[in-house]
Amino acid sequence: MSYPPSIQKLIDLFSKFPTVGPRTAARFVFYLMGLSKEEVDELLKGIIVLKKNVKLCSFCFNPFDIARRSLGEGGTEENLCPICSNPTRDKTLLCVIEKESDLISIEKTKKYNGLYFVLGGTVSTLKKEEIKKLRVEQLIERIKNPAKFGIKNAKFQEIILATNQTTEGEATTLYLERILKPLNLKITRLGRGLPVGSELEYADEETLKSALEGRK
Amino acid sequence: MSYPPSIQKLIDLFSKFPTVGPRTAARFVFYLMGLSKEEVDELLKGIIVLKKNVKLCSFCFNPFDIARRSLGEGGTEENLCPICSNPTRDKTLLCVIEKESDLISIEKTKKYNGLYFVLGGTVSTLKKEEIKKLRVEQLIERIKNPAKFGIKNAKFQEIILATNQTTEGEATTLYLERILKPLNLKITRLGRGLPVGSELEYADEETLKSALEGRK
Amino acid sequence: MSYPPSIQKLIDLFSKFPTVGPRTAARFVFYLMGLSKEEVDELLKGIIVLKKNVKLCSFCFNPFDIARRSLGEGGTEENLCPICSNPTRDKTLLCVIEKESDLISIEKTKKYNGLYFVLGGTVSTLKKEEIKKLRVEQLIERIKNPAKFGIKNAKFQEIILATNQTTEGEATTLYLERILKPLNLKITRLGRGLPVGSELEYADEETLKSALEGRK
Amino acid sequence: MSYPPSIQKLIDLFSKFPTVGPRTAARFVFYLMGLSKEEVDELLKGIIVLKKNVKLCSFCFNPFDIARRSLGEGGTEENLCPICSNPTRDKTLLCVIEKESDLISIEKTKKYNGLYFVLGGTVSTLKKEEIKKLRVEQLIERIKNPAKFGIKNAKFQEIILATNQTTEGEATTLYLERILKPLNLKITRLGRGLPVGSELEYADEETLKSALEGRK
Repeated sequence: MSYPPSIQKLIDLFSKFPTVGPRTAARFVFYLMGLSKEEVDELLKGIIVLKKNVKLCSFCFNPFDIARRSLGEGGTEENLCPICSNPTRDKTLLCVIEKESDLISIEKTKKYNGLYFVLGGTVSTLKKEEIKKLRVEQLIERIKNPAKFGIKNAKFQEIILATNQTTEGEATTLYLERILKPLNLKITRLGRGLPVGSELEYADEETLKSALEGRK
Repeated sequence: MSYPPSIQKLIDLFSKFPTVGPRTAARFVFYLMGLSKEEVDELLKGIIVLKKNVKLCSFCFNPFDIARRSLGEGGTEENLCPICSNPTRDKTLLCVIEKESDLISIEKTKKYNGLYFVLGGTVSTLKKEEIKKLRVEQLIERIKNPAKFGIKNAKFQEIILATNQTTEGEATTLYLERILKPLNLKITRLGRGLPVGSELEYADEETLKSALEGRK
Repeated sequence: MSYPPSIQKLIDLFSKFPTVGPRTAARFVFYLMGLSKEEVDELLKGIIVLKKNVKLCSFCFNPFDIARRSLGEGGTEENLCPICSNPTRDKTLLCVIEKESDLISIEKTKKYNGLYFVLGGTVSTLKKEEIKKLRVEQLIERIKNPAKFGIKNAKFQEIILATNQTTEGEATTLYLERILKPLNLKITRLGRGLPVGSELEYADEETLKSALEGRK
Repeated sequence: MSYPPSIQKLIDLFSKFPTVGPRTAARFVFYLMGLSKEEVDELLKGIIVLKKNVKLCSFCFNPFDIARRSLGEGGTEENLCPICSNPTRDKTLLCVIEKESDLISIEKTKKYNGLYFVLGGTVSTLKKEEIKKLRVEQLIERIKNPAKFGIKNAKFQEIILATNQTTEGEATTLYLERILKPLNLKITRLGRGLPVGSELEYADEETLKSALEGRK
């Protein structure tokens, strides 16, 4: 016994979504079956609009809405996202992040006013085929010649490598530090320490060391 | 700072999916953005086909694939699912379940060969508006006159109320027992006891009582 | 840096307690250090009294309080626990359990009025040295000749093997069934089924099979 | 049905241990019942020795072993713990911690060579009766006049408030900062930031802010 093919097919497609297993995928399909025609059309349209209207910023690779851009919001550059085309952002700072949602996380702190670059992932090994998945060459090009990618009057003085504090994030940062060294820029990392809500007893030694050294 | 509207719109739609919060919904959208045009089209088509090809069985309300039916699989009835139109199923037994996936769970045991009825939910209170959400009237009609809904030669002798063993499932079963009583049929419930893998120490008293009474 | 030896020694001893790791053991020691002399003495006395006053029932191996016994509670036999010496218990039923707390769990259901036998564990393999840890010979002796162990007028007709529904519990029960077969008694197991609070969707196939077969 | 009083009494006493509920306490008692006389005696002796040999350091309130002290380990002061009586520790730094195990955590980093003070807890409110539980007056006395409590040649220049980054730890630190302000010393806190192993996506805003500000 199993689901009919039209249902099974969609369960299989939803099972490829991140964090979704077959059981949750099945719940998604039954949820869709219970939606009205209008609600399903809204979802279909949403997906179509996403693929049509959203493109990647030519400088930072952050996705943005073309429709919104053409309405005059943000800068004047056709291919730049609102952050990259915002003339008030600090164009001496570049923050390299793993993925799009990390950009949102940092913007929410309201403590950063520079530009971003979405690296597109992390590596666990420094094998060539692994590193090829990252936008390393694109990063170097953009640091060297931001004007070529639409950012005028930029001159980066500090590159913040804001990867996760995981083994993969660490490996990626070590690799980038080596690659970016010849550019003779200030390269920084996010500060380590005790997070809000944490207890000394459960902190690892490395974190506690950083918290002691970074006391103020 | 927030996501562009085309992205945010889709995040909102995915956030309504069962078990999905805004963070997961955002991951879904970024996942979609990374898919090729072909892959997105496959998903869109899957959803369209689901809404077009899948309909609810006129007897048991289990969804089935019209396309598959017209290919001659299962019975001859246009509006019946493969189980209801299968002449070898035992038409004296009717198993009432809360939702579609429970049918799959029971079919997998290969210990049940009767028909099903998808109740469409459970109730936590016996308020009128709550009970209206369930297919109670439809259940009674189908028990009384299965032929009217496409099942020939059926005469139910036992109704198995296979709701979950939760408070809601229990309330629903109590309600159904009262409603079905005048029909003078054998009404049964799934057996309570210790599940595979369980330990006496962590079993509640009710379960352990049932396990003692049901020893064999 | 580490704890002083008097503290470390006690951390090591508490770390051997079931479920206790070194971090919890350290918390125990600091808790003890914070207790008054009277409170510590109460704990020391409690442990000494336990070892002095509590002994194992000569029939069922359940621990009981000698002091309480000599005060006339329960039966007249010096070496029997209150259950075994209670004349109103049903002496045709014997329930074999893995450990002492399982006896409490079953008593709490108030659905069992027979005698018990504490097996002392379970086996994961049927290797000789594993099985030696269980009180198998003692079980057989007590079934054959309960009077020899202080239970008068007993004649067991049913042996309930109330092990956990885990792999180990299952292996132990299979072994006991084989061993007890020549005694020609009714051998039963606790009933399998859906526990209170459970949902069909998360039940394993075996449990659901039993729930279907045990419907009533 | 319940446990015999000698067992129940000890279950009650163990249930007062930190993190221990009645079920775990019962397991402890059955564990003790299974120990040999020698093993139980070892535990009893361990507890007695703890209460006899371990005392609190007159300066920092950290527990230490008197026996070990008299053997000549550490300093010469009768009432000082090995850290406080160690002539090589930096006597310009004082680290205030909530509880004994935090001292161990910091010592393990090998990044701190000053003295400690065990505050004895945290407060959630600044009510008088709450604050009385902390060793606030003792802290001030010891900062003002370390020699009076056995520490010669000490002159503190920095007080590190190393409480947990929890709401309670924060409230306690705010209170101590206010209380210690008149002493005109440098008062510091542990550095906030991303802990090892963490991801930006799951970091709270405060932590991410600190990580950005503390980048290096």
